[in-house]
Amino acid sequence: MNDSAQIKVGVVGGTGYTGVELLRLLVQHPKVSLTAVTSRSEAGSQVHELYPNLRGYLDLEFTHPQVETLSECDLVFFATPNGVAMKMVPELLRAGVKIIDLAADFRLQDPQVWEKWYGIPHACVDVLQQAVYGLPEVNRAAIAEAALVANPGCYPTAVQLGFLPLLEQGLVDQNGLIADVKSGVSGAGREAKLGSLLCEASENFKAYGVAGHRHLPEIKQGLERASDNPVGLTFVPHLTPMIRGIHATLYARLNNTGTDLQSLYQERYANDAFVDVMPSGSLPETRSVKGANHCRVAVHVPQGGDTVVVLSVIDNLVKGAAGQAVQNMNIMFGLAESAGLDQIALMP
Amino acid sequence: MNDSAQIKVGVVGGTGYTGVELLRLLVQHPKVSLTAVTSRSEAGSQVHELYPNLRGYLDLEFTHPQVETLSECDLVFFATPNGVAMKMVPELLRAGVKIIDLAADFRLQDPQVWEKWYGIPHACVDVLQQAVYGLPEVNRAAIAEAALVANPGCYPTAVQLGFLPLLEQGLVDQNGLIADVKSGVSGAGREAKLGSLLCEASENFKAYGVAGHRHLPEIKQGLERASDNPVGLTFVPHLTPMIRGIHATLYARLNNTGTDLQSLYQERYANDAFVDVMPSGSLPETRSVKGANHCRVAVHVPQGGDTVVVLSVIDNLVKGAAGQAVQNMNIMFGLAESAGLDQIALMP
Amino acid sequence: MNDSAQIKVGVVGGTGYTGVELLRLLVQHPKVSLTAVTSRSEAGSQVHELYPNLRGYLDLEFTHPQVETLSECDLVFFATPNGVAMKMVPELLRAGVKIIDLAADFRLQDPQVWEKWYGIPHACVDVLQQAVYGLPEVNRAAIAEAALVANPGCYPTAVQLGFLPLLEQGLVDQNGLIADVKSGVSGAGREAKLGSLLCEASENFKAYGVAGHRHLPEIKQGLERASDNPVGLTFVPHLTPMIRGIHATLYARLNNTGTDLQSLYQERYANDAFVDVMPSGSLPETRSVKGANHCRVAVHVPQGGDTVVVLSVIDNLVKGAAGQAVQNMNIMFGLAESAGLDQIALMP
Amino acid sequence: MNDSAQIKVGVVGGTGYTGVELLRLLVQHPKVSLTAVTSRSEAGSQVHELYPNLRGYLDLEFTHPQVETLSECDLVFFATPNGVAMKMVPELLRAGVKIIDLAADFRLQDPQVWEKWYGIPHACVDVLQQAVYGLPEVNRAAIAEAALVANPGCYPTAVQLGFLPLLEQGLVDQNGLIADVKSGVSGAGREAKLGSLLCEASENFKAYGVAGHRHLPEIKQGLERASDNPVGLTFVPHLTPMIRGIHATLYARLNNTGTDLQSLYQERYANDAFVDVMPSGSLPETRSVKGANHCRVAVHVPQGGDTVVVLSVIDNLVKGAAGQAVQNMNIMFGLAESAGLDQIALMP
Repeated sequence: MNDSAQIKVGVVGGTGYTGVELLRLLVQHPKVSLTAVTSRSEAGSQVHELYPNLRGYLDLEFTHPQVETLSECDLVFFATPNGVAMKMVPELLRAGVKIIDLAADFRLQDPQVWEKWYGIPHACVDVLQQAVYGLPEVNRAAIAEAALVANPGCYPTAVQLGFLPLLEQGLVDQNGLIADVKSGVSGAGREAKLGSLLCEASENFKAYGVAGHRHLPEIKQGLERASDNPVGLTFVPHLTPMIRGIHATLYARLNNTGTDLQSLYQERYANDAFVDVMPSGSLPETRSVKGANHCRVAVHVPQGGDTVVVLSVIDNLVKGAAGQAVQNMNIMFGLAESAGLDQIALMP
Repeated sequence: MNDSAQIKVGVVGGTGYTGVELLRLLVQHPKVSLTAVTSRSEAGSQVHELYPNLRGYLDLEFTHPQVETLSECDLVFFATPNGVAMKMVPELLRAGVKIIDLAADFRLQDPQVWEKWYGIPHACVDVLQQAVYGLPEVNRAAIAEAALVANPGCYPTAVQLGFLPLLEQGLVDQNGLIADVKSGVSGAGREAKLGSLLCEASENFKAYGVAGHRHLPEIKQGLERASDNPVGLTFVPHLTPMIRGIHATLYARLNNTGTDLQSLYQERYANDAFVDVMPSGSLPETRSVKGANHCRVAVHVPQGGDTVVVLSVIDNLVKGAAGQAVQNMNIMFGLAESAGLDQIALMP
Repeated sequence: MNDSAQIKVGVVGGTGYTGVELLRLLVQHPKVSLTAVTSRSEAGSQVHELYPNLRGYLDLEFTHPQVETLSECDLVFFATPNGVAMKMVPELLRAGVKIIDLAADFRLQDPQVWEKWYGIPHACVDVLQQAVYGLPEVNRAAIAEAALVANPGCYPTAVQLGFLPLLEQGLVDQNGLIADVKSGVSGAGREAKLGSLLCEASENFKAYGVAGHRHLPEIKQGLERASDNPVGLTFVPHLTPMIRGIHATLYARLNNTGTDLQSLYQERYANDAFVDVMPSGSLPETRSVKGANHCRVAVHVPQGGDTVVVLSVIDNLVKGAAGQAVQNMNIMFGLAESAGLDQIALMP
Repeated sequence: MNDSAQIKVGVVGGTGYTGVELLRLLVQHPKVSLTAVTSRSEAGSQVHELYPNLRGYLDLEFTHPQVETLSECDLVFFATPNGVAMKMVPELLRAGVKIIDLAADFRLQDPQVWEKWYGIPHACVDVLQQAVYGLPEVNRAAIAEAALVANPGCYPTAVQLGFLPLLEQGLVDQNGLIADVKSGVSGAGREAKLGSLLCEASENFKAYGVAGHRHLPEIKQGLERASDNPVGLTFVPHLTPMIRGIHATLYARLNNTGTDLQSLYQERYANDAFVDVMPSGSLPETRSVKGANHCRVAVHVPQGGDTVVVLSVIDNLVKGAAGQAVQNMNIMFGLAESAGLDQIALMP
């Protein structure tokens, strides 16, 4: 694109936590002109009335989501609940608009698996086939050509980036993978749910979704692509009493113990600006990525045994959602991959 | 003992978090008369000046720890840093005082393992041989006869109670056990350490001690006793931004998948008042035991696979320290095991 | 009452935070037999399914609230939303049941003031006249004779106990009182409200209700009774990111500076077991009363000026709700005022 | 200065919370070249080893603080404990280096007042006379000419910005001002102090420094300058369980009630980009400025009485420290006042 041109961007569903995080990033993006932010419930009110952190940065009203208006955009982000995007996307694609969906509608390639885990039939199976899974560290080239990108889930991002080097090289028993993952409460969204109340979720720690979480098939799909084999994965998500952050603790049995895993990881991610392989022995903290688009990873083999432990942290709202979406946009529009993504984590 | 008699109890090291929790429990115990609370640093000041929650409940000054005074007690609790108790215990035992050590001095039966993990030689190897490991659900009869009880660590309590039924029955591959455990910050004690500051530990999640944590040999010792075999254990502790609570997520491969694990757990703990095997499908929360002496356990086999997931929660300061110590005292003195331990968890 | 007899107690609305706190206290009360816990929404399920902290302590199902069943109780607590109790109370009183209402229905003596602040006409103005305001430190004798007790609000308890000695003695300018009060989030109840989400309320501090909060007329009514004069009060409540606790910081101009305020407070509360006047210079912390029924108070006159600053802390769910209700019950039934209220605050 | 030139900047004392916050802002400042970051305790190690959020953004080692090296800077920030800067500043000023001190050394114009509150004599009284108090909303012109700027304290910033319009216009009784202020724990710094531990400070709220806080004389000095009269101020700081944020609740009696306070505030701050006078009725939240350099203010007159309540929020580490320091630098070097200060608050 023309160097000085701005991408005309629309955001559908701008009231949730991924929505406002997307606005925070887009408002400061040097190549983005934000033209529409939609919300059925808030239409007519100023965005900064809902989100006072945007006072002075964004002078736009929420509007009703309408295909005509959105069709004038170069790119539309969907930050909507699952099942919404798939109803509007086909028409927008036909109008020549590029799409990044931050929900799950286009993440699972198999529409039957989608129906099983999300409880409704997929609304546009043909379009689903064109969707590119937006994990740049795996699919950068395809994303560059894509009209429709399915932005990965937060857990899947942290788990895949942690496991990929091992699986791509076939270094572990892929039948016994374990992903013990801990998420801040913002992962549950900005809905008034009992379990997300401060009085329910703070000073408390618990597992949930042990019997089966919707991110399980998405993670398996990604790991199987990397492994070129079926994988056996036990995935246990937990709720941890903080706002932002995901910490994945990943376990696998090594097939043999001779490989230099530190070098393997460093080489694998040498060209991925947002994956930071930390020095040997490091213990990444979620706060080191709070508000930033990085995934920090460390590899351990405790007591020199045959079990590898990978620690992988992201901010679920940034690399796990809005930041990765902007990263995908940058790739799709030929911009520097890190344009508008230079936020440094707040510490403390 | 005589029904109306009170146990004369001393507490050495009453200023830390396990110390004050012990005081909270002992002050209300119907059979305890608290006669001495020692602290080198606070000697001379009222206990309730340091801990205003005890105002009106305890009118006692901190004193210097002295064998003469402590020798008049029936029982002395050590809530001191590792390495302190082993210097005073032999003399107190000779004076006929019973001992419960809440630190690690008498937890590891092998003095060489102790020296390896704690960095100093054990000061009384002969006494170490008489120490009984104070996990009532395993050693109730021995505790009843013991003069010296080594109160288990917090992580070891949660992990052992979760794994024991599986290992005692030989139902899992004991070479590939994984314990992914999350602790509140009070587990790090009441020392002014940088990493325990609110600004460092809140809104943050991280693993630590991946290369080797002092509770690892203690857990292995207990699991090997249960299994009657060497075990291979990967133990990864994590710091979670809350004050109290431990959540252990335990993983093992089942040797076969036919066993009714729910019944197994219920039967194993049928006579253990403080282990609550929750109904099938439950997801125990740490707050359900905040301030209470219970361990709540749930067993899952996700997606009917061959990996069993056990969830086990305790309050690290109660069942993981002071409460279990009182439970051991009750057993040693022939009282009802739950005497003085009827606190209901604060919720919310 | 007969020494061995148990009070038959019903709880209407047992699912909110004051409800479960009341159950925690009643279950362990030596003179209470809990016979009914009602909830429209949870009828038919076990109480401990909703509140696992009660597992093993309470084996009772939620039932529909019905006058026939409740009429068999000696005492019924209402832990319901405002406006519910006033519809059932008259009939229960006629049946000889004593009532403690933890909501606001009977707190304001003037029904027109009630209607103004609560938006609906009062349903039983005649019954309202018999209600006794249940602040034992003011109304102990009347409570002992009462059939119907209006349990004070949480803010009003902390503010009144802090200001009373000054106003009763006419020591301050009662036209310029300021109450700057901070509450934990549990004060907002167990409703799924956006503003009570962990992601909205943690790592955040804000004032609310500055234009007028429902507790304002209740506080003024109490202060005017103490002062025997109209008072001018500015009351600003704030939401602080924690579960439990209220901290009132109270300001008034002294009419003269000669009085020994420390002695005044100590004498005023010498016979009130649950008001702890702390030593001169103290800074009470909310955690020193977490889970306990105490109000701790300290009086300061900074830089020897003419402004007195009173600090007053309570646990909003205990002395600010359920604990005070049990205290009132004890008084109404001639029990020791502290029966069942010996919980020591959890620290840390 | 030349448009393309970079300011050579040194930071003395880069390990505390204001230090790392300053680095976060300076690293991304378009006109700054960071040449030295000093720390006695960390000299020789990479800055990003201490602060992993800076990995990839800053490749600099901590060095010992030395006048020779620092003399090559155009500007040196002191983010040191009180009493350190005043020993080095005179020499640096003679070398032509401009100085911004984030500590208290140059905030109080009267050296005797300084000695009274800080306990040591002032080391350079002559230099103190040249220091300009760095509150841009009051002293913008003087800051532009200054060689030495005393960056205001966090409490003084929030309180002064809230009170100034009222005092400058003489609208309130300046003898009875009350500032009830609440701070996050990062205000206590990155020292390993018992009171700053998560287990001491979370789930807790308390006042401190009621008898006299070091920020009191600084606030009074500023208010008296605005009022042109002595003021009587009661200042009570409180610790609130969160990392960042200050919320000042300010009370004063209006001399008369006819003024349009909303317009007054809007006009007073019309040219101050970082003071956001919110719409009438607003309740500013600290999180709306988390990580941002804004002060948001709202004015209330509850129930139309004669007491005005001003709510003022800042991020204590940004507008209350590092951000304001950068704002002062921008003014001193003729840059746009908001250069490098466009961070949007993280929400949630």
